[in-house]
Amino acid sequence: MAFTAPDFHRIEDASIEISPYIVNTPVFTSRTLNHLTGASLFFKCENLQRAGAFKMRGAAHAMVRLSEAQRAKGVATHSSGNHGQAVAAMAQAMGVPAYIVMPKASAKVKVAAVQHYGGEVIFCENTEASRVATLEKVVAEKGAAFIHPFDDWDIIAGQATCAKELLEEVDVLHAIIAPVGGGGLISGTCLSTKYLSPETEVIGGEPEGADDAHRSLQSKTLCANESTNTICDGLRASLGQKPFSVIQEHLSDLVLVSDQEVTAAMQLIWERMKLVVEPSCAVPLAVVLKDKERFAGKRLGLILTGGNVDVNNLPF
Amino acid sequence: MAFTAPDFHRIEDASIEISPYIVNTPVFTSRTLNHLTGASLFFKCENLQRAGAFKMRGAAHAMVRLSEAQRAKGVATHSSGNHGQAVAAMAQAMGVPAYIVMPKASAKVKVAAVQHYGGEVIFCENTEASRVATLEKVVAEKGAAFIHPFDDWDIIAGQATCAKELLEEVDVLHAIIAPVGGGGLISGTCLSTKYLSPETEVIGGEPEGADDAHRSLQSKTLCANESTNTICDGLRASLGQKPFSVIQEHLSDLVLVSDQEVTAAMQLIWERMKLVVEPSCAVPLAVVLKDKERFAGKRLGLILTGGNVDVNNLPF
Repeated sequence: MAFTAPDFHRIEDASIEISPYIVNTPVFTSRTLNHLTGASLFFKCENLQRAGAFKMRGAAHAMVRLSEAQRAKGVATHSSGNHGQAVAAMAQAMGVPAYIVMPKASAKVKVAAVQHYGGEVIFCENTEASRVATLEKVVAEKGAAFIHPFDDWDIIAGQATCAKELLEEVDVLHAIIAPVGGGGLISGTCLSTKYLSPETEVIGGEPEGADDAHRSLQSKTLCANESTNTICDGLRASLGQKPFSVIQEHLSDLVLVSDQEVTAAMQLIWERMKLVVEPSCAVPLAVVLKDKERFAGKRLGLILTGGNVDVNNLPF
Repeated sequence: MAFTAPDFHRIEDASIEISPYIVNTPVFTSRTLNHLTGASLFFKCENLQRAGAFKMRGAAHAMVRLSEAQRAKGVATHSSGNHGQAVAAMAQAMGVPAYIVMPKASAKVKVAAVQHYGGEVIFCENTEASRVATLEKVVAEKGAAFIHPFDDWDIIAGQATCAKELLEEVDVLHAIIAPVGGGGLISGTCLSTKYLSPETEVIGGEPEGADDAHRSLQSKTLCANESTNTICDGLRASLGQKPFSVIQEHLSDLVLVSDQEVTAAMQLIWERMKLVVEPSCAVPLAVVLKDKERFAGKRLGLILTGGNVDVNNLPF
């Protein structure tokens, strides 16, 4: 485990270390969406990442850095979403057990997805206290290593490889826009951008119904979401301390978007780009559509974070 | 207009002539689907083609071959589907008018798609007779050139460029599998494969509820669909005479699939590959899933034909 924010060498090393386990995902463009927004959009397609989301990068990096002995005992996390799937997929690739703590009320499709990658699902009550207690018990009993979803420098260095690839592929980006949940991706994006293209702005997008990062930046104090109300199921976690320290320094702006704006952006990506994306993933496009004047004529990198959505249960 | 089946030079010329208007679409693979089928699948992603379907290739080729004078008067077709959109999109790219005859009962989303590309929609009654009469009237009044959806050698040479690209990108394919509707794509695929990789089989997939090609091949006489009953809206047209003459000679096999098999394959492509595909587009994967034993261990090219689907009205 690393104790300071990753420098560029750490991110470069992460890129190399995780390369056997992840895809250098393609960057897509769309004439129609360029026309509609008046900007030049470069979509980094992490929905096409292994296990269907950028989370594979952080999980892979945290897990390649475990000692052999640690790894053999397996890994554990609490996540009913993409991080849980990523940890399970990476454990399967490494041939070690994964214990994924999920609330009893989790959607069956999410439980099935973790099991698809060979992860052992351990159910807890639908409370934060039970989640923490169950995870602690699993870690104690199995000796498994806890892989945090975001508040960890190794995870952040892994997520940073996404913007690194984007900046290496696309010249002269005026801004990179990424969603903000727990903060692993946005802080990694800030770091890679600072090192590789300091003139590029990094802009976060956050759902109105889970606006803890916005409140944290305004108040300069880390705030949590007491409750959330958004279809962006990947962005309900509260911002972590480590990501907060990075974005306080490096984030250019944070834009709030409504669920309605997210749904409209999501439908556009499905219809025009023919890509299956989850609601959280549409936040950056929603940010651009919300203020076309601001972004007109700009070259923008948008991170499409993931495509794990229940196609039987869509918001449109 | 050409009067004989295209030889390889014609297909090569078509590739060059249409290159400013089309995308050399990517070939995707999926570990999960390889694992599930026991085969190595190479998906040629025509859902990512301009105007959302392979139809852009044929339309572009037929239209670049029109004389300047013909082109200036515009183009016309009858199609409520991907061919109509492709003709409109290509006319827009060339700066000429497109007249698209569509039945009054056409879904609003299809009318909107043609209009999105600047096409002029001309409504007819919901009968074949009205469709033909309305098209003839438009052609006579406007002097527009009729761009047939499939029964035309220039169209077939255009659609042939899809398999050409696939065979140039992927080595040693045991078979290419494509859906069969009017037959433009499957006959073009047969021709490119014959010229570039004669040892590769070409296999067609057809919905049970629009099985005219199957009946035509069995009876060695061109049969039509009196009525159709399938969710594969792109495959309801009856096989054309020219495509029939090609596939009679060159098609290795034609497999019928049910709507249930198509829907299951479509959902797999959405969930596992994160690609938006229309029902017709899932037919080749349905063919593989229907008879895994036959295809085990084989390297298969599957043409994902299009992604124009109403996301508000899905079969799952």
